Amino acid sequence: MPIEIPDVVIDRLPVYARALAALERSGREVVSSQELGTQLGVTPAQIRKDLSYFGRFGKQGRGYNVRRLLEELQQILGLDHKWTMVVVGVGQLGRAVLSYGGFAPQGFEIVAAFDSDPAVVGEQIDHLVVKAVDCIREELAVRAVDIGIVATPAAAAQQVIDALVEGGVRAILNYAPIAAHVPAHVRVKDIDPVLSLQSMTFYLKSEVAPSTAK
Amino acid sequence: MPIEIPDVVIDRLPVYARALAALERSGREVVSSQELGTQLGVTPAQIRKDLSYFGRFGKQGRGYNVRRLLEELQQILGLDHKWTMVVVGVGQLGRAVLSYGGFAPQGFEIVAAFDSDPAVVGEQIDHLVVKAVDCIREELAVRAVDIGIVATPAAAAQQVIDALVEGGVRAILNYAPIAAHVPAHVRVKDIDPVLSLQSMTFYLKSEVAPSTAK
Repeated sequence: MPIEIPDVVIDRLPVYARALAALERSGREVVSSQELGTQLGVTPAQIRKDLSYFGRFGKQGRGYNVRRLLEELQQILGLDHKWTMVVVGVGQLGRAVLSYGGFAPQGFEIVAAFDSDPAVVGEQIDHLVVKAVDCIREELAVRAVDIGIVATPAAAAQQVIDALVEGGVRAILNYAPIAAHVPAHVRVKDIDPVLSLQSMTFYLKSEVAPSTAK
Repeated sequence: MPIEIPDVVIDRLPVYARALAALERSGREVVSSQELGTQLGVTPAQIRKDLSYFGRFGKQGRGYNVRRLLEELQQILGLDHKWTMVVVGVGQLGRAVLSYGGFAPQGFEIVAAFDSDPAVVGEQIDHLVVKAVDCIREELAVRAVDIGIVATPAAAAQQVIDALVEGGVRAILNYAPIAAHVPAHVRVKDIDPVLSLQSMTFYLKSEVAPSTAK
């Protein structure tokens, strides 16, 4: 295994894989780092450097073989596996997550959903029946789950994450606006639109036009 | 203005600001980079380095004044402004965005919502009436909007983003699974749960136990 690869590099690889998959679908066989970079808004040098962590993919001046590079990235990222997920929190956001059509085609299968509201527990959503949040541990005891999606209010999130981690989940997709605490062997990705907005306003602010300043 | 600050540093500042705001609410006056780091899962050195881009905040060995650092960060990030946003795409995800209570308290106000479905246009959601997506340009002509939230299907997203940018929007929060093309003066943050999942499976994969390998 290659080690010491910066997280930001790993974060970019799925973006490359997605672009390559689109190129493959359109019948393209070869793509240059230049073209890929233009398409994705990164420099060709960045792409070559990111890929260099994993060996040599392209022939100098000949570009990348689309299918081969895609397959390599899928293997590197584990996209050729099937992964199981549970969703905790079946409010408006949790429902949007459950109804999102983009997970399954990428190998991410939601196998259970949990909520703390007795009015929601027992409700059928697609092929799943919502279970009580107190049952997370026993559910995970009988079924291996790779990833937990946390769509609860902030106040409930850490407790839910603890239960998921105790149940053997090693990756958390966290929609709750908290800084989650997990053991070192567990990965967390936060999805927090407010933090994303706040990191953009830094740039907006530096060029606020008089007409839009408030 | 400080320049050449890495985007990853800007991305971390809102996380610091959020932690400081929580400390301030709990009555804390001083915090060390050590304690802040433990709370957020980053090294104290990282915090000191990130803040050093903007001047000296802490006294050696005395920690940071919570309120002063928070106010500085709010000013740096433009969190002391009010920002206006429109949401395009009022499906399940767009509705979750519209009903999310976390934007307004942080100064982000949704002032309009658009959809292409005639069955949805005209629907009242909270205080907003959903408008036709074809009206984005004329709506933005009469009202300054800072940020566009794109919650449309992938196929519609670039066209919507073009309309928003033409209308003067300078920041896009993009939920659609596409690599958006925008002019250099426009910022984009993608919220794509699949990309987040795919960058975690890299780490899961390297330690897949036989019982969970598929």
